[in-house]
Amino acid sequence: MKPLIGIAGNVLLNNADVNGLPITYTPQGFVNGVRQADAIPVVFPISDPTEAKDYLSKVDGVLLAGGQDVSPLLFGEEPSLKLGATNPARDAFEIALVKEAIHQAKPIFAVCRGLQLVNVAYGGTLYQDVSDYPNLAVQHVQLTHFETGAHTIDIEPDSTIGKIFGNQYVVNTYHHQAIKELAEPFRAVAWSKDGLIEAFEAKSPHQSIVAVQWHPELMIPYDLMMQRLFTDFVKRVIKKMI
Amino acid sequence: MKPLIGIAGNVLLNNADVNGLPITYTPQGFVNGVRQADAIPVVFPISDPTEAKDYLSKVDGVLLAGGQDVSPLLFGEEPSLKLGATNPARDAFEIALVKEAIHQAKPIFAVCRGLQLVNVAYGGTLYQDVSDYPNLAVQHVQLTHFETGAHTIDIEPDSTIGKIFGNQYVVNTYHHQAIKELAEPFRAVAWSKDGLIEAFEAKSPHQSIVAVQWHPELMIPYDLMMQRLFTDFVKRVIKKMI
Amino acid sequence: MKPLIGIAGNVLLNNADVNGLPITYTPQGFVNGVRQADAIPVVFPISDPTEAKDYLSKVDGVLLAGGQDVSPLLFGEEPSLKLGATNPARDAFEIALVKEAIHQAKPIFAVCRGLQLVNVAYGGTLYQDVSDYPNLAVQHVQLTHFETGAHTIDIEPDSTIGKIFGNQYVVNTYHHQAIKELAEPFRAVAWSKDGLIEAFEAKSPHQSIVAVQWHPELMIPYDLMMQRLFTDFVKRVIKKMI
Amino acid sequence: MKPLIGIAGNVLLNNADVNGLPITYTPQGFVNGVRQADAIPVVFPISDPTEAKDYLSKVDGVLLAGGQDVSPLLFGEEPSLKLGATNPARDAFEIALVKEAIHQAKPIFAVCRGLQLVNVAYGGTLYQDVSDYPNLAVQHVQLTHFETGAHTIDIEPDSTIGKIFGNQYVVNTYHHQAIKELAEPFRAVAWSKDGLIEAFEAKSPHQSIVAVQWHPELMIPYDLMMQRLFTDFVKRVIKKMI
Amino acid sequence: MKPLIGIAGNVLLNNADVNGLPITYTPQGFVNGVRQADAIPVVFPISDPTEAKDYLSKVDGVLLAGGQDVSPLLFGEEPSLKLGATNPARDAFEIALVKEAIHQAKPIFAVCRGLQLVNVAYGGTLYQDVSDYPNLAVQHVQLTHFETGAHTIDIEPDSTIGKIFGNQYVVNTYHHQAIKELAEPFRAVAWSKDGLIEAFEAKSPHQSIVAVQWHPELMIPYDLMMQRLFTDFVKRVIKKMI
Amino acid sequence: MKPLIGIAGNVLLNNADVNGLPITYTPQGFVNGVRQADAIPVVFPISDPTEAKDYLSKVDGVLLAGGQDVSPLLFGEEPSLKLGATNPARDAFEIALVKEAIHQAKPIFAVCRGLQLVNVAYGGTLYQDVSDYPNLAVQHVQLTHFETGAHTIDIEPDSTIGKIFGNQYVVNTYHHQAIKELAEPFRAVAWSKDGLIEAFEAKSPHQSIVAVQWHPELMIPYDLMMQRLFTDFVKRVIKKMI
Amino acid sequence: MKPLIGIAGNVLLNNADVNGLPITYTPQGFVNGVRQADAIPVVFPISDPTEAKDYLSKVDGVLLAGGQDVSPLLFGEEPSLKLGATNPARDAFEIALVKEAIHQAKPIFAVCRGLQLVNVAYGGTLYQDVSDYPNLAVQHVQLTHFETGAHTIDIEPDSTIGKIFGNQYVVNTYHHQAIKELAEPFRAVAWSKDGLIEAFEAKSPHQSIVAVQWHPELMIPYDLMMQRLFTDFVKRVIKKMI
Amino acid sequence: MKPLIGIAGNVLLNNADVNGLPITYTPQGFVNGVRQADAIPVVFPISDPTEAKDYLSKVDGVLLAGGQDVSPLLFGEEPSLKLGATNPARDAFEIALVKEAIHQAKPIFAVCRGLQLVNVAYGGTLYQDVSDYPNLAVQHVQLTHFETGAHTIDIEPDSTIGKIFGNQYVVNTYHHQAIKELAEPFRAVAWSKDGLIEAFEAKSPHQSIVAVQWHPELMIPYDLMMQRLFTDFVKRVIKKMI
Repeated sequence: MKPLIGIAGNVLLNNADVNGLPITYTPQGFVNGVRQADAIPVVFPISDPTEAKDYLSKVDGVLLAGGQDVSPLLFGEEPSLKLGATNPARDAFEIALVKEAIHQAKPIFAVCRGLQLVNVAYGGTLYQDVSDYPNLAVQHVQLTHFETGAHTIDIEPDSTIGKIFGNQYVVNTYHHQAIKELAEPFRAVAWSKDGLIEAFEAKSPHQSIVAVQWHPELMIPYDLMMQRLFTDFVKRVIKKMI
Repeated sequence: MKPLIGIAGNVLLNNADVNGLPITYTPQGFVNGVRQADAIPVVFPISDPTEAKDYLSKVDGVLLAGGQDVSPLLFGEEPSLKLGATNPARDAFEIALVKEAIHQAKPIFAVCRGLQLVNVAYGGTLYQDVSDYPNLAVQHVQLTHFETGAHTIDIEPDSTIGKIFGNQYVVNTYHHQAIKELAEPFRAVAWSKDGLIEAFEAKSPHQSIVAVQWHPELMIPYDLMMQRLFTDFVKRVIKKMI
Repeated sequence: MKPLIGIAGNVLLNNADVNGLPITYTPQGFVNGVRQADAIPVVFPISDPTEAKDYLSKVDGVLLAGGQDVSPLLFGEEPSLKLGATNPARDAFEIALVKEAIHQAKPIFAVCRGLQLVNVAYGGTLYQDVSDYPNLAVQHVQLTHFETGAHTIDIEPDSTIGKIFGNQYVVNTYHHQAIKELAEPFRAVAWSKDGLIEAFEAKSPHQSIVAVQWHPELMIPYDLMMQRLFTDFVKRVIKKMI
Repeated sequence: MKPLIGIAGNVLLNNADVNGLPITYTPQGFVNGVRQADAIPVVFPISDPTEAKDYLSKVDGVLLAGGQDVSPLLFGEEPSLKLGATNPARDAFEIALVKEAIHQAKPIFAVCRGLQLVNVAYGGTLYQDVSDYPNLAVQHVQLTHFETGAHTIDIEPDSTIGKIFGNQYVVNTYHHQAIKELAEPFRAVAWSKDGLIEAFEAKSPHQSIVAVQWHPELMIPYDLMMQRLFTDFVKRVIKKMI
Repeated sequence: MKPLIGIAGNVLLNNADVNGLPITYTPQGFVNGVRQADAIPVVFPISDPTEAKDYLSKVDGVLLAGGQDVSPLLFGEEPSLKLGATNPARDAFEIALVKEAIHQAKPIFAVCRGLQLVNVAYGGTLYQDVSDYPNLAVQHVQLTHFETGAHTIDIEPDSTIGKIFGNQYVVNTYHHQAIKELAEPFRAVAWSKDGLIEAFEAKSPHQSIVAVQWHPELMIPYDLMMQRLFTDFVKRVIKKMI
Repeated sequence: MKPLIGIAGNVLLNNADVNGLPITYTPQGFVNGVRQADAIPVVFPISDPTEAKDYLSKVDGVLLAGGQDVSPLLFGEEPSLKLGATNPARDAFEIALVKEAIHQAKPIFAVCRGLQLVNVAYGGTLYQDVSDYPNLAVQHVQLTHFETGAHTIDIEPDSTIGKIFGNQYVVNTYHHQAIKELAEPFRAVAWSKDGLIEAFEAKSPHQSIVAVQWHPELMIPYDLMMQRLFTDFVKRVIKKMI
Repeated sequence: MKPLIGIAGNVLLNNADVNGLPITYTPQGFVNGVRQADAIPVVFPISDPTEAKDYLSKVDGVLLAGGQDVSPLLFGEEPSLKLGATNPARDAFEIALVKEAIHQAKPIFAVCRGLQLVNVAYGGTLYQDVSDYPNLAVQHVQLTHFETGAHTIDIEPDSTIGKIFGNQYVVNTYHHQAIKELAEPFRAVAWSKDGLIEAFEAKSPHQSIVAVQWHPELMIPYDLMMQRLFTDFVKRVIKKMI
Repeated sequence: MKPLIGIAGNVLLNNADVNGLPITYTPQGFVNGVRQADAIPVVFPISDPTEAKDYLSKVDGVLLAGGQDVSPLLFGEEPSLKLGATNPARDAFEIALVKEAIHQAKPIFAVCRGLQLVNVAYGGTLYQDVSDYPNLAVQHVQLTHFETGAHTIDIEPDSTIGKIFGNQYVVNTYHHQAIKELAEPFRAVAWSKDGLIEAFEAKSPHQSIVAVQWHPELMIPYDLMMQRLFTDFVKRVIKKMI
């Protein structure tokens, strides 16, 4: 039987395309990436942190998608002037999912906000806006169409990311927050040319965590390499299932 | 452990609120109705009919939500002049889910398009537009805000619906298709004042199927009776789990 | 001290001009009409019918403004195909206000929907859409700018309306519902040229009720006669206060 | 009989949801907060300052809501570059209401602009834009959805606010003006982490005034503590009525 | 010195392109047509009918442009169901201009609504909507871009129009009202293929009036024949000036 | 060397996505279909009919795309009430292209409006709107997403279309005009279930013309059969080049 | 006979409210101001400078209205970074009107852009954006509704402006350009509190020129003083006519 | 036979005016400029660089139009903060077209982005945004309507540009990128007053390349000089054809 992957969903209030009703949703790129890796995706609605255990017990791996800013109150800061919209309920549920996934030793794949959230869940901190980063020199919110890589990243070759992409690659980019201090259990494995962390992985061989700052799910139809992040994720999941 | 309910999701192309990206989604009312009935909802993305078995094997019950028109090609008609948008891929996946649910004897709760789809899955037919119904006299797409009941239904007292709502109730209404011929395995249990079927249930005591034409998920915050349809569904699920 | 006039307010959900928030409101024309008649207006939010008595005890007269369709369930009909949006909670509160005003013998001035509501409160019925009226020949939703009179009305000279406007006048018009059967306690005093009732008054000399189908509050700045409806209302209020 | 609360209303010109007509309105959150505190709210249209006495004599307490910037001409400054829209007529009417309320010893509850207005009415001054505040470090116009608290406030425990919320709380925030010099009759009782005044109260035990910079009316459905500000207000009103 | 042509202007309320302010305006095609005929155009704002004499005394000819429907009250009818927006103040001012122009024997050129208005000014009547015309068979509101002729007209050769265009021509068309009974002083000189009057002229040789139902000012840049209507008008004006 | 295919382009005035500037364009589906058939597409701007010979001499085949209605003046009718927008300049240029292509014996592939235009170029006629067709029973403007087939067509097996699609197929549909009388040189090879012509081909073996009423270029990414229409077209072109 | 006032008009391309057509127009406030001063306004379309003499010879005075920025090429500068839209054709025509008016000794009233244009016509210069003004401290583009005065001006008492408004007044403000060097023939008579020129007049007693930087035409309905600028203008015109 | 000019086209995704479909297009000004120079334009869809040779072999000259930013990765930079949208596929195809045109010695005319692209194709570099240019003093994205020249350029008289325009001219301007280092094979022939390169030409007499930074195609209908750039281009093409 195919592995079951839980995608932590988001919520939209007053969605114009659904008569102004709220919806639970996830971008289709994540659904397609998981399905093309021969796994079965289901979307988790935002729920109480206490329900994270129930959710995790049903699935074999968890995918953390993009979305709102992570609340700075979670890493001990007041909101600064350029903070974007946050969703504390989503933060709380996803932190519980992350901790439960690690507790149950189930693999995690985290994208953009997902990367930031996993970092904060284990004590890392964020730049609330990239303009707070003193060495900022690269455009991290691209105007170029989303399927097109826009800036270069340097990659640690001895890493999951490095095995897929080699020493250097061009990725797309849509984030105004970024990692300031990386949490202790993780090691950075990719950086933009101005020095921001673009990917990290778990240090411990017992944990199977890959987190990227860009949006591979938007590039899949145009760059086959990006599908490999999903295929690798499902391989990691299957390995743990055995 | 709480029962796991699969909600058959929908897809939106070019969603304005998510940068024009496609999303898999379900209206929040279904998520809330299931959660308030103390079950755990996950959303199924539209997938291949061959995957229906895998999906059903993971969950304890399935909820079919509202949305597009059912394709008339499925019941032997060409599209007539007032047909709305259809999604044949969703039709095919949901028909497979319905058949698999019945095969695995897992309870179904179907709402609006869900009711129409279940009917077609078992050989029933639809009015492609209510204006094709010769006795049409009631407004079936209300302009009144969605949480407010708009027209009266008469109810068969000896039915699941009747046990919840009694002989008569006022419900909201947002459908331009309607049941023409009800499929053999089902019996109608509620009707609008101009004679259209507003709810049906499985005849067989071995099947646990309730289908309603209105939108209880939109009325829950304003009419506690509507939550009872979800609570009843979860009770039926738990009964089958034992 | 100036008389206090309660204007029964309306509610807007998702108001675009106030960040999508709901608001309680009333069109400014009613506020201006009352103030220019030297009375003090306050707006009543839609409340429970049981609170109508409290509200009426605070004011000296009540003004019923325009807005949604009156629900046909209130006069024994199901919604027909062209019914507009209704607000049953507003209907219920305003019917309670009307009954309480009559009980406390406080004057009423009713405009457009207000006229229809007062009629229904006392057992009258409505055409759910003017196209249901067999003799329809006049445009009752004008495209001409609102301050401009558009069609002619014939007036019963021996009436409050007749004393203000004479035998005939040209009024603006924005209604798609209209009176079918006038409730027993009222008499019609004005008609459009195709025979629909354009104004009614209380038959009983103990009641002080004037109801008009057009929108005088929109014409005040351009037609001084329309202010006289407000001035007359306040005179009726003062007379009852003594 | 329940106490009657006057909410000082606002005006919208060209409201898109009401055919471009002007309306008198107040956000529904204030209406709901007062009703849930078991009092009766009515909305005051903006009127002449000379009418403030009449209005106040009819009610038992007055609520000053959010809205436009307070005109800097009222505290001796010319408009600076980032001033928002003002409404001098509203300023004048509300200042008269405040002074009359204090004269009649009727309680005041002031929210956001209301807080600023009360301060200016008694000689206080404002930052025309928070960017004029030299120590600005916190985002005071949140992008996070309005029902969610965004930044922390420190609270004087020995105050009405302190009795409700304790020493610290997280509140929502939507203001670009802020108090510069607090007027003599008031004392600050809460501050944001960058030192702006978030709430004040009357020094004199004979006056019953509570003013907050955030928007409790938007958080009520999600944070029961916020309703307590309204309940406390109605209690203060009842105490004065006796 | 060049002749001075008065163009009777129109008014727009809430013009989106001018900050929602009202403006007096005329379509540029009329300005260009007059200038290219070597005359000087000025635009008359809508004014009191009593001022028509003053306006006419300043100019050598008058041009009546397109715009709103003519009010049916002017020819003894109530507004029927498909009437468009009217502007009674514009009607009254332009009727006064027409009568004064004829009184002062100054030439008139009338386009679309202008043709209808001149007809009504002298006792003619209109179809309030072309659907009231029993023989309607041609599309009179074209969807094709405005500079392109859309339907054929038959022309009386012995007429001003006939001298310019010959027996038949293809013209553009944007009118939903049309002439029913032509006023006595005029004779029809062009018809659409379904028999509606497309142009008329004064019978009397002492009057210089040409009125067309289509919009020559929109076709000038693409069809040089249309400029000839303006050139002919200015020639008629100069002839009267001598 | 690859064959060169001329696609007869369209023009958009005031294109919102290009700063309101006019553009020459063609839908990308035609470009992709030709490129995937291993030919080189260029777009012809609408030009003078006299230039058709020059254009044809440069290319090996011509593709006529969808777009505006064909002007009824070209087949001896006045515009009827439901005619859509036309572009007589495009009509004239494309008729010249068709005649020149036939003269030079270069293959034609015509889609939707292209089919209608080729028919009119050789003396055929059209229903100006499908509602003029007495047997209309099928929805010919689908609301379902464009890549999805919506209605069934019956196909003459002994034809180019039949060789590709067999006896029956489901196609998408976006046309409100349709063939009334087919021009003499052509034979119909496919029909919708209500009897409208859905495809035709040249009778003469010396001409290589295929015309379809549906939009294969929109279905290519989802239905590989549709690409075969383009591949067949390029094969026909290559055959003529030899 | 009443004096005739020429208002120099503006042009709008692609006006959304007139089917995307260009129009010649002027804001209604100028029309009303002139009519209420008992003069007759006509609007001049933008024309060739050579026609200015013809236009001026027909009227008794000229009013220069608001609108686009004046082109910096006219005063020897290249466009700087914050320049707004300009209309060189309008500049040229209006400069010719100003010079001709002075030549014919006909009075001028100039508003906002009008003031800037008159200054440039006689050799003055402008700040292309007020941010270029080193002492900028006041908001010169108000967000407050246009009929409301926003900032204070100091006035030279011995001037036309001073005779109307006294030493100080509060005016509205909508300009991002401002006078840098005032042309020799003029003297400043009013200033904002940060020192920008808000009004000037002709030094020579033979010229009758008044120019203001604010928009009196928008305040007339709310501040009777503003009408006096128009009344004074017409008085000046009549004085010259004698 | 007239020369054939290939215009390198652009692509629009989700074009609102064509039902959200992607299109290949080029601004109409380029089409008109080429046709008025008596040549035949065809539009090249963006294709693989390997197809450039095929495309060039079919035409006599190539025109490079305006559009997206050129990707900085092509000249060795990461995207900086103000980079606009890029289209790397278009960059690659057009660079191949440029090189092939030079290889086949066919003339090039390049406009705006076209100028930047040709420079980068031969090793030149760009300012990613004009704000990176230290001497920036002129507005290079004009707000004035596009057909109107906005700033001055100084011109090398001994150049193609100089022969057309003389020593100085006023041109329109819509670019936020600009040439930093000009590639070796080219020489600058025009500059804005703040020193940015506004035009360049090939140094080699064997190459026929003219590139301008402004948009002559938008000014043609209003400034006949701009058509001369197109006429000169076609002359250069014909010269090479012989």
